[in-house]
Amino acid sequence: MSVTETIHPAHPPAFWLRDNCPCAECRDPRTGQKLFQITDLPDGLAIGAVRSGVPAADGSPGLEMRWEPDGHRSVYPQAWLTAHAPGAAPATGAPHAGDGRTEADKETWAAADLAGRIPEAGWDAYIGDRRVRMRTLESVVRLGFVLLRGVPPRDRMVLDVARTFGFVRETNYGELFEVRVEADPNNLAFTGARITPHTDNPYRDPIPTLQLLHCLSNEARGGDSGLVDGFRAAALLRAEDPDAFAVLTRVPVEFAFADARTELRAHRPLIGVDPLGRIREIRFNNRSIGTLHQPAAVVEEFYAAYRSFAELLLRPELQLDFRLAPGDCVVFDNTRLLHARTAFAESGARHLQGAYADLDGLLSTLSVLRRGGDRS
Amino acid sequence: MSVTETIHPAHPPAFWLRDNCPCAECRDPRTGQKLFQITDLPDGLAIGAVRSGVPAADGSPGLEMRWEPDGHRSVYPQAWLTAHAPGAAPATGAPHAGDGRTEADKETWAAADLAGRIPEAGWDAYIGDRRVRMRTLESVVRLGFVLLRGVPPRDRMVLDVARTFGFVRETNYGELFEVRVEADPNNLAFTGARITPHTDNPYRDPIPTLQLLHCLSNEARGGDSGLVDGFRAAALLRAEDPDAFAVLTRVPVEFAFADARTELRAHRPLIGVDPLGRIREIRFNNRSIGTLHQPAAVVEEFYAAYRSFAELLLRPELQLDFRLAPGDCVVFDNTRLLHARTAFAESGARHLQGAYADLDGLLSTLSVLRRGGDRS
Repeated sequence: MSVTETIHPAHPPAFWLRDNCPCAECRDPRTGQKLFQITDLPDGLAIGAVRSGVPAADGSPGLEMRWEPDGHRSVYPQAWLTAHAPGAAPATGAPHAGDGRTEADKETWAAADLAGRIPEAGWDAYIGDRRVRMRTLESVVRLGFVLLRGVPPRDRMVLDVARTFGFVRETNYGELFEVRVEADPNNLAFTGARITPHTDNPYRDPIPTLQLLHCLSNEARGGDSGLVDGFRAAALLRAEDPDAFAVLTRVPVEFAFADARTELRAHRPLIGVDPLGRIREIRFNNRSIGTLHQPAAVVEEFYAAYRSFAELLLRPELQLDFRLAPGDCVVFDNTRLLHARTAFAESGARHLQGAYADLDGLLSTLSVLRRGGDRS
Repeated sequence: MSVTETIHPAHPPAFWLRDNCPCAECRDPRTGQKLFQITDLPDGLAIGAVRSGVPAADGSPGLEMRWEPDGHRSVYPQAWLTAHAPGAAPATGAPHAGDGRTEADKETWAAADLAGRIPEAGWDAYIGDRRVRMRTLESVVRLGFVLLRGVPPRDRMVLDVARTFGFVRETNYGELFEVRVEADPNNLAFTGARITPHTDNPYRDPIPTLQLLHCLSNEARGGDSGLVDGFRAAALLRAEDPDAFAVLTRVPVEFAFADARTELRAHRPLIGVDPLGRIREIRFNNRSIGTLHQPAAVVEEFYAAYRSFAELLLRPELQLDFRLAPGDCVVFDNTRLLHARTAFAESGARHLQGAYADLDGLLSTLSVLRRGGDRS
């Protein structure tokens, strides 16, 4: 007997449905993990007898199914079936249409869009108020950054900030890195030079997906900060020069960094897209781009596209300018935002401490905070 | 005057050549980083006068070029031009044809290929001998794993092992995790259950690319270990069922993990390929695969392909079986190898400590070791 029609007009595929069986034999009640292998399911699996009005484990109305040929019994909450059963293609923008990391789930911006409304929070409120913490982390997800104010300008405090939402990613630069003028710098960041908009560590794979910069002092002339939304910039390139955009999503570029103790190398396109072609990841760093090894025709088209994108990234209307004061800590998505700074006098006192962390930890913290709803 | 013919028959593109100028004005001698923006180069950039026989900065024979229209002067070592100038497509397998992470640069294996030659090293030799250290890390890169023997079976020693080649990736499981029977486990790994071949943490993005498991005691009945080369398995699937392979490279799958303090979610295909279609990343974990949200036709073809791949991964000839003894520490590539264990009696003493780290750190350590050549 085939009764799939009574379940859903689109016939949920049998293996999909069985793989989602919520019973305690199929899914560990302690861990939520599946207890069976997909290979444990019999060939010729099919839905047998179906009974509606059976209460599901959570007490809600459910649909009971007996499976052929093995006689297993599953009870699915009716609401779960309605929400999840495969039918037509999911609508664009539906929660499950992507992984939340692409332009589809972001609010992209140019500088003017954030005039007078830079996303920020005071440290005490962030620590003390769950709703402020939620809004703060949501800004990082939605806009790509947030500015925390009044963070105690203490040595290593940046690590404590990172640990409020995730885990520090240690690298060859250490658990944290000092952004100030060094006597023997292994990176231009540690000089007084101007640094144009870039993402950090493109020569690393996996790349650190979040960066924190905490200002301890900033008395130098110059040394102002800037942020550019790389997703907005890439979308502009796509609109203005679709061929250049396509080239930059396609050609892997070698990024490299080396010093006495380190030699890092990664090959990735400047613009990473998801399987549906949506912008998901920007890597851009003129200092560490290596030698491109491609046929001459590819090299020609890459350099034309690279120059176009680089020019676009320098448009003043894209760059949000601000100045970090002692106690400010900016947290930003290193897969999306480019950061920059103006040159500063090497004699002046400018000292930031930086650290890397990852988006998955921040997103997890935010999801757990959201379980509490809007209560404070 | 156009003299590019005298340089290379394939006409190195001007912007590429100039972007690789090695002079101290273009590239910081202290850091090796580029000092100019690609947008600093003038429109209409072209090679002007060319002079051969000019010594390069490293003293080797070089080619001097004067650039139009800005008059900049570059001297390229002749050997560098020969090795790097874009011409025809780079040969497959050439060092720059890929990023070293795909099947093209690996030695894939079935269990019999490693019979009697499991890659291993004694801890003292590994620590004391640079060549042993090189060979050990090369095994992880080439075969996907190595077994260190005689690692002191001390609490937290696994972190010291990780720090010999890279940086520990802290996660919600901690800096290290205890693999033993827990009273209230949040993961089946922390019970006595059989665990079939899987990769770890597919619900994390970025995923930890290396895993270490250090055995402190193993007196339980059962609890044997197994490793499967996921690249070999995926290549077999491609040979036997190309359509199923294609489906698994294309359909993003949601992986999820949640407990009281954590909620992680990532969407990735089971088989990740590079832009040339080469196998680069395997994610496979029946315990944490979530609900697939795709049109019914995609769900149908995904489940058929998923079952085929899962069956293939269980073929005994693919799985290398071994038993960890106290002091053994296995280090493996979590983007390539699947690991498994047989069930064990929950009453027996079996205790591993695990940690995550990343491939980029290991590859950097190996590159720096190689600078010393073959000297000990």
